Amino acid sequence: MLIAAPKVPRPPASAIDRAKLALEQRVGASRVITDPNGCATYGEDESEVAAVTPDMVVLAESADHVAATLAVAAEHRIPVTPRAGGTGRTGGAVPVAGGIVLATASLARVKEVNRDDMLVVVEPGVVTGELHALVEREGLFYPPDPNSLEHCMIGGNVAENAGGPRALKYGVTREYVLGLEVALMGGTRLRTGRRTVKGVTGYDMTALFVGSEGTLGVFTEITLRLVSKPAEIATVLALFSDARAAGQAVTDVLRAGLVPRCLELMDARTLGAVRAQGVAIDERAGALLLAEVDGDSALVEAQVARLGETLSGAKGLVALQAAQDAAQRGRLWATRRALSPATKRMAKHKLSEDVVVPRSRIPELLERVDAISAATGVRALTYGHAGDGNLHVNFLWDDDAERPAVDDALHRLMKDTVAVGGTLTGEHGIGVTKAAYLPLEQSSELIAVQQGLKRTFDPHELLNPGKIFPVR
Amino acid sequence: MLIAAPKVPRPPASAIDRAKLALEQRVGASRVITDPNGCATYGEDESEVAAVTPDMVVLAESADHVAATLAVAAEHRIPVTPRAGGTGRTGGAVPVAGGIVLATASLARVKEVNRDDMLVVVEPGVVTGELHALVEREGLFYPPDPNSLEHCMIGGNVAENAGGPRALKYGVTREYVLGLEVALMGGTRLRTGRRTVKGVTGYDMTALFVGSEGTLGVFTEITLRLVSKPAEIATVLALFSDARAAGQAVTDVLRAGLVPRCLELMDARTLGAVRAQGVAIDERAGALLLAEVDGDSALVEAQVARLGETLSGAKGLVALQAAQDAAQRGRLWATRRALSPATKRMAKHKLSEDVVVPRSRIPELLERVDAISAATGVRALTYGHAGDGNLHVNFLWDDDAERPAVDDALHRLMKDTVAVGGTLTGEHGIGVTKAAYLPLEQSSELIAVQQGLKRTFDPHELLNPGKIFPVR
Repeated sequence: MLIAAPKVPRPPASAIDRAKLALEQRVGASRVITDPNGCATYGEDESEVAAVTPDMVVLAESADHVAATLAVAAEHRIPVTPRAGGTGRTGGAVPVAGGIVLATASLARVKEVNRDDMLVVVEPGVVTGELHALVEREGLFYPPDPNSLEHCMIGGNVAENAGGPRALKYGVTREYVLGLEVALMGGTRLRTGRRTVKGVTGYDMTALFVGSEGTLGVFTEITLRLVSKPAEIATVLALFSDARAAGQAVTDVLRAGLVPRCLELMDARTLGAVRAQGVAIDERAGALLLAEVDGDSALVEAQVARLGETLSGAKGLVALQAAQDAAQRGRLWATRRALSPATKRMAKHKLSEDVVVPRSRIPELLERVDAISAATGVRALTYGHAGDGNLHVNFLWDDDAERPAVDDALHRLMKDTVAVGGTLTGEHGIGVTKAAYLPLEQSSELIAVQQGLKRTFDPHELLNPGKIFPVR
Repeated sequence: MLIAAPKVPRPPASAIDRAKLALEQRVGASRVITDPNGCATYGEDESEVAAVTPDMVVLAESADHVAATLAVAAEHRIPVTPRAGGTGRTGGAVPVAGGIVLATASLARVKEVNRDDMLVVVEPGVVTGELHALVEREGLFYPPDPNSLEHCMIGGNVAENAGGPRALKYGVTREYVLGLEVALMGGTRLRTGRRTVKGVTGYDMTALFVGSEGTLGVFTEITLRLVSKPAEIATVLALFSDARAAGQAVTDVLRAGLVPRCLELMDARTLGAVRAQGVAIDERAGALLLAEVDGDSALVEAQVARLGETLSGAKGLVALQAAQDAAQRGRLWATRRALSPATKRMAKHKLSEDVVVPRSRIPELLERVDAISAATGVRALTYGHAGDGNLHVNFLWDDDAERPAVDDALHRLMKDTVAVGGTLTGEHGIGVTKAAYLPLEQSSELIAVQQGLKRTFDPHELLNPGKIFPVR
């Protein structure tokens, strides 16, 4: 069973007809899809949110097309849902109010790769994995690596402030966005930020747009800071008797001054799912940590040695192995990347949450997830970016009749996360699926201030309506 | 000669009297300074902006005092200028419209130092250097290190998004602010952000407040992320024939994948100032680079070796030396830190700018500064955080009659900075001194959007008026 889209009023048919006509004139008829079958493929993303077929889709190929669409939309009061790769996990690209889907997938030029200033200027439709490959050929490195990197697009990554395993050492998308070209509802075009790594001129408008989930503006150009590509990578795998021991080891590693690029955790149920795929894992293991370090060879060697020292002294350690060889590393990571589809195969429906807790509270959160599962009868498994405290708690179910129990489990998870000092989402965003829980974390004053900001950009609530804030 | 404060209307005397009465009741008479001599010491900061004596000063000792002051101010329409350490360089703490100075220096508790979650919760009046010492005793590290660290306060650092030499490796203040408690004009209190290293719930309100120069809200509590204290530090000093060669070496070092924690440059005129203090520097040297690396001993050793390799092959190298011993390091840095007062002694007046350019454009900017100096007759010397492209261009003058030439030089510097793809300020903020130049860098649309945001927080423009935006 899917999550129902919030009930946001759709625009009247007469306004839609006038907007269609205007868009065909200003953007070109070949770039405006109006037949319902064509539109239907733009009605959903990779969340469990029920599809909503938009009234039309604009396939933007230039910043002018984007600005023109937003001008027409404002004039005729038509909702607009921006869309890049459509791989979001919280319904951010689902056009819950119908109207226009503004697709930026064809706005996909790489405008500049600057080796000396270590930056790249791209359009929003560039696929993240392709950006990785492109800059790495130049000896450069773009760290954010969301799980969907082979399909997701940089525009969506910026809109959601995407993370990924490497965020532990390198930070999330926000840390790499130097500047933006944004089109606002109404068609005004802004250039925010800069080409320099430092700069404090005016308010940090770039940071306000990053992670705003398509509700404040539509990106037409993105300037990203790059770093040098690390020369070498090594992976260390540690098995623990239980998740509490693994959680303590995470704290030990970071307190030792080590900054692995990733520090991933899998709980006992996740190990079960991996074992069910035929991967042999020591039967004594009730939790797994995967640490990856990078840098020059001397640095990597020193870090692997320090990791070994720290982990070999950890309580509850069952086994420890270092994989410095590429094939072995690839196998470990293939398993990690396959986890998401694998868990999806375990049940008809899956909700993958991405709560974050202070690192020291990871064991407590894992215990609370066990308790939630026991109380509601909903299967749960947890893995994720433990170094950041960012855990993917997955709820699995097959039968529509289980849905009230799943809702109950989700609500308990959100409450427990906030209770241990955490936050609802570390990388997926609030979107549709978590909007109802926003007041658990944020005060009504903070929500009101954000809605006030939103209105300065979009007084008629036309840009990506129904997202982030609870629908009245 | 000082820079005149912008003409912002002062509140009527009757409103001031009513506000005084209300504040004495709500905050306590002992915390409200009203005599002109007492008020006068709160009229200036460390910029060249002319002092303006406020009508009263509130010495806040609690978040309640801050909120009450902002409530009274809103009710009686009295301007409020927040102030922490008062060490700003652009006039941000000068109460140009009179009214209330809201001093947070006595709001200075360290509420929590959390070793496991690697964070600290402090009030805005904590001195930055004292915070450094405090967390370093716990094996932790707060990287931002503005030059004024012995006197500046963390509240001001957050308001200005302060940097410092170590920003090259560690980033600026923004990268460390996890969450804020803010009081808004009118007295509403907000909690933004979180205690976790990751989190994308709602808009990035924390980033919007960081660097907003006291125009959007007043901080009453700040949660800062910490990292592990690096075990060792080593310093490498390289002398070059000229600034162009040194600028190229900066690019070479970073392209080699090295990330020193600092990479500081001094131009020929700055070397002259240092020599004049009796420090012996090779006479062939026309530029100096100071690189500092940190980490575990193995890592530091590896980095010093790589730095040596890279720099010894650089064009125009005159001399290269590594200082791994603490006393030698201390001497090198004492010179660097003494630069600012030393240049102040070279002339009666000094304007220290902090423009930023893309790293590859550093040599070009230095040439343009030479040309500006030649064209205007104003003495200039340049040093700064070359790894970030963040250069302190200092204009020096003695005689009031030179002032029009200084204005001309400043205007040319700002235009040239923008022309080479740079930004007006990397760490000092816009404040009063650069407000007139904002339109050189930002479009009228971008400025209007920022002013629109400002109005949602402060519709009557009472909070730190006359800052950032050009006064009509």
